[in-house]
Amino acid sequence: MGTRVSTAPTNSGLTTGPIEGSSKQYLDVGHLRVPVRRIHLTNGEHLDVYDTSGPYTDAAADIDVERGLPRVRDSWARPEPVAGASTQLAWARAGIVTDEMRFIAAREGVDEELVRSEVAAGRAVIPANHRHPESEPMIIGKRFAVKINANIGNSAVRSSIADEVEKMVWATRWGADTIMDLSTGADIHTTREWILRNSPVPVGTVPIYQALEKVDGDPTALTWEIYRDTVIEQAEQGVDYMTVHAGVLLRYIPLTARRVTGIVSRGGSIMAAWCLAHHRESFLYTHFEELCEIFRRYDITFSLGDGLRPGSIADANDEAQFAELRTLGELTRIARSRDVQVMIEGPGHVPMHKIAENVRLEEELCDGAPFYTLGPLATDIAPAYDHITSAIGAAMIAQAGTAMLCYVTPKEHLGLPNRDDVKVGVITYKIAAHAADLAKGHPRAQERDDALSRARFEFRWVDQFNLSLDPDTAREYHDETLPAEPAKTAHFCSMCGPKFCSMRISADVRAYAEENGLATAEDIERTMAEGMASKSAEFARAGKRVYVPLEPVTGAGDPA
Amino acid sequence: MGTRVSTAPTNSGLTTGPIEGSSKQYLDVGHLRVPVRRIHLTNGEHLDVYDTSGPYTDAAADIDVERGLPRVRDSWARPEPVAGASTQLAWARAGIVTDEMRFIAAREGVDEELVRSEVAAGRAVIPANHRHPESEPMIIGKRFAVKINANIGNSAVRSSIADEVEKMVWATRWGADTIMDLSTGADIHTTREWILRNSPVPVGTVPIYQALEKVDGDPTALTWEIYRDTVIEQAEQGVDYMTVHAGVLLRYIPLTARRVTGIVSRGGSIMAAWCLAHHRESFLYTHFEELCEIFRRYDITFSLGDGLRPGSIADANDEAQFAELRTLGELTRIARSRDVQVMIEGPGHVPMHKIAENVRLEEELCDGAPFYTLGPLATDIAPAYDHITSAIGAAMIAQAGTAMLCYVTPKEHLGLPNRDDVKVGVITYKIAAHAADLAKGHPRAQERDDALSRARFEFRWVDQFNLSLDPDTAREYHDETLPAEPAKTAHFCSMCGPKFCSMRISADVRAYAEENGLATAEDIERTMAEGMASKSAEFARAGKRVYVPLEPVTGAGDPA
Repeated sequence: MGTRVSTAPTNSGLTTGPIEGSSKQYLDVGHLRVPVRRIHLTNGEHLDVYDTSGPYTDAAADIDVERGLPRVRDSWARPEPVAGASTQLAWARAGIVTDEMRFIAAREGVDEELVRSEVAAGRAVIPANHRHPESEPMIIGKRFAVKINANIGNSAVRSSIADEVEKMVWATRWGADTIMDLSTGADIHTTREWILRNSPVPVGTVPIYQALEKVDGDPTALTWEIYRDTVIEQAEQGVDYMTVHAGVLLRYIPLTARRVTGIVSRGGSIMAAWCLAHHRESFLYTHFEELCEIFRRYDITFSLGDGLRPGSIADANDEAQFAELRTLGELTRIARSRDVQVMIEGPGHVPMHKIAENVRLEEELCDGAPFYTLGPLATDIAPAYDHITSAIGAAMIAQAGTAMLCYVTPKEHLGLPNRDDVKVGVITYKIAAHAADLAKGHPRAQERDDALSRARFEFRWVDQFNLSLDPDTAREYHDETLPAEPAKTAHFCSMCGPKFCSMRISADVRAYAEENGLATAEDIERTMAEGMASKSAEFARAGKRVYVPLEPVTGAGDPA
Repeated sequence: MGTRVSTAPTNSGLTTGPIEGSSKQYLDVGHLRVPVRRIHLTNGEHLDVYDTSGPYTDAAADIDVERGLPRVRDSWARPEPVAGASTQLAWARAGIVTDEMRFIAAREGVDEELVRSEVAAGRAVIPANHRHPESEPMIIGKRFAVKINANIGNSAVRSSIADEVEKMVWATRWGADTIMDLSTGADIHTTREWILRNSPVPVGTVPIYQALEKVDGDPTALTWEIYRDTVIEQAEQGVDYMTVHAGVLLRYIPLTARRVTGIVSRGGSIMAAWCLAHHRESFLYTHFEELCEIFRRYDITFSLGDGLRPGSIADANDEAQFAELRTLGELTRIARSRDVQVMIEGPGHVPMHKIAENVRLEEELCDGAPFYTLGPLATDIAPAYDHITSAIGAAMIAQAGTAMLCYVTPKEHLGLPNRDDVKVGVITYKIAAHAADLAKGHPRAQERDDALSRARFEFRWVDQFNLSLDPDTAREYHDETLPAEPAKTAHFCSMCGPKFCSMRISADVRAYAEENGLATAEDIERTMAEGMASKSAEFARAGKRVYVPLEPVTGAGDPA
């Protein structure tokens, strides 16, 4: 990186160009250009939606993976440090609205002051390392749209660096708000460099993974110094948030011994092994204040890891989990006292009736810090479908106040996700996040549901596809049954066929009611009382329109 | 049917044989043989689970689709009529425990008296037409395991009768508790006959669909007499429950005129068209008492249809929907006064924060009759993923008290489901139902989660697959990354590889804690106070076991 080895754009292997039916647009907010995805409808209208995909979906963008993305934030105003701190939290507390906050307010469609005040209160974070100027700022907090994270990560055997960059591009294309690079192996530093220089979204890491590489995978050989140097190395590269399992205390480890699935967090188990081997308190805990100093320098956001999260329904909400959560609350207060932003990671595997308690306790113990959960999976019995078991839990925990959801793919517990799995995971989590936005009454959320449902009711098939989270698959499924192009404008669909179409009948009902001024139950009661037999004759005539056979289509399959 | 046209079993095209890793067993309960699926584990243990698949998964069964399944219920005791009624409701109210109730109590693992009393109270139904003796009785009620329904239905172009029977076999193999035959077209009677004679689960229909066929698809030409004769025809064949949209009253129709998606129920729109065309009250409503007489004769269960259910987020919980629900409550009381069993159909499309109100109102207005919902979809914006959008709503509404969930496939809103779609829909709904069983504390539900999680923790891969809802897909996904057979017993997996395996580390943590008597936080605090440095040396030795490299595997991809 840095030196450009090719003058021609080397974007081969990257997925570029707009998503079907849409184009990249920019809102001008002062000197800021805020991206939106504009979905163009066949009736001449359009709908602008939140856009995480960066320049890759801009038909006019000049993409060159070796040069990296434009360093847009370099030209933005950087306020003076406040009491030595140059963090969004310090500025927010000082009453300063940064360009990042302005950008976010425009993206979310909210007031700048809401963004500032939520950050100032610690209820929202803006993960934006000063050294990642390529990123388009975003916010994680319960008053804003629910966000999703996608994990990527190379392995020596299965991935190349270019593959990893493409995974990031692919995941953000479909809606990932942040990505976590969980790479291991020899090229870990270089992989991360390429991802950061090309990522339009914040990048998170778990530094203990790389630290462990440096000691040949033996957790007992880890030291604070090795860990600290790894954090600084990643901080210099521009990592925006880091998972730190500083709440796994020595005395909590025995609490996991009688669990069904023990410790399932990789970071948590590494630290547990270290603590037990040395019979000492975790160096992440004892050196936490030094860590805060490093994080403050770059404005890195803590993602305090739940190393003792439950890995099964049986272990949910147990003493080990909540003991760690109390310690995360203590660490949250330390970080905030140094103007460092904090979010809190959460489970895991939790049955539905125990989900709300997780949010309630997290908010109480961690002073309202944003919650960032993995699912949770609402049952253990469906490996190969854990994107679904976890989407149920994710939607519910987000409704209860979780600010960001870490996706789960169909390969969870079984193997490494491929390209299709990543897409399915991202779309599934967009569903969970959006369902929660609707339930929380997020101001813009229902616009898209309404636009899609109007398109559905009016048989604007192409609009229905393009307004969906995955236009390509919606179109493909439709075309399996009714491949002919005219079917996309036909006033019926393959589920019912022309005779049975309930949508069409109800369009006629609506026209009839409106033509006859029957807007309320009282109106029709009145006409009944008046014995207006003529009304029925009128509808019978109008009704004929409905049942004219158009052409033979396949029928049935629809719910009752 | 009836006449056997072939002596050789003609089961070609049907999926038979046990699901991977399991076998059919029967519990002997007096003269009743109650089926269970026994999952055999590699550690010599087994787990019996609820089995909807009928004789098709019995390796010893002699399947002949032309002969149909054995008429097992013909040999069961049939109590005398109570006040002229031979229905499960009449018997339950008279204090009689029928063989059907005994069978169900054994299947569910509950007391017979619970079954009887819930049926007597109208809070549960047993859909079991006297003329469907091939069926294995099941119960739908909030005190029992949540059930799921799969819709099937032919169309002239795309399906043959054998295909329809196979769809039923396929759906029940993966867990469908009932099926609804929504066939249309010329062979509707014959298709239904074949399905009924071969179905081990209750079969539901929507008689208005066939009635409409008889008037060439013109709803305005429908009459009570045509409808009544259709119901009798289907009753004679053995249909166990029927959807009747008797709550779509003339005066409610204008309430839908300003909706985003009008009337989306096919049955509802047919009746709306009829009411408006004739400007008269629905014949289903005005003749409801006659309908009760027919249903009582066969012990058919009403599934009172929600013809005005919302078809979009915007229309959820509106006046039209709840006006109809009040009428369904009125009809419930009429049916029950005639000893006819009733359940109530529900939506549809509902945002998460409006789901609980649906259950609360249904229970209040319909005197606790079992609720049977279609999803609901928690957002409109994900066609091609509506099995997932609806599983979120389904799990939540079931947790709130819904007794049966009608599945949704990935093709919902787009086209006709194929074989893979049916399986995905069924598995997805088993997830939603099971998640709700866990949340409601259903006595047996967590056994399976715990068994699977123990297998996961102990690296019993084959057991993990076989305990899952879909062993074939779980195994396939695993084998994509680690195809070699030894990997199935390896003490690590493809997500982390041998160095990183958190499960393995925590197994060692457990062994260490147990060997040293460290069962509580106090124990370890004590050892710390005693300064037992020897403990750490001991673990360091034990810990070496963890990190011995076994063989190269691919790494990364796991959440933090």
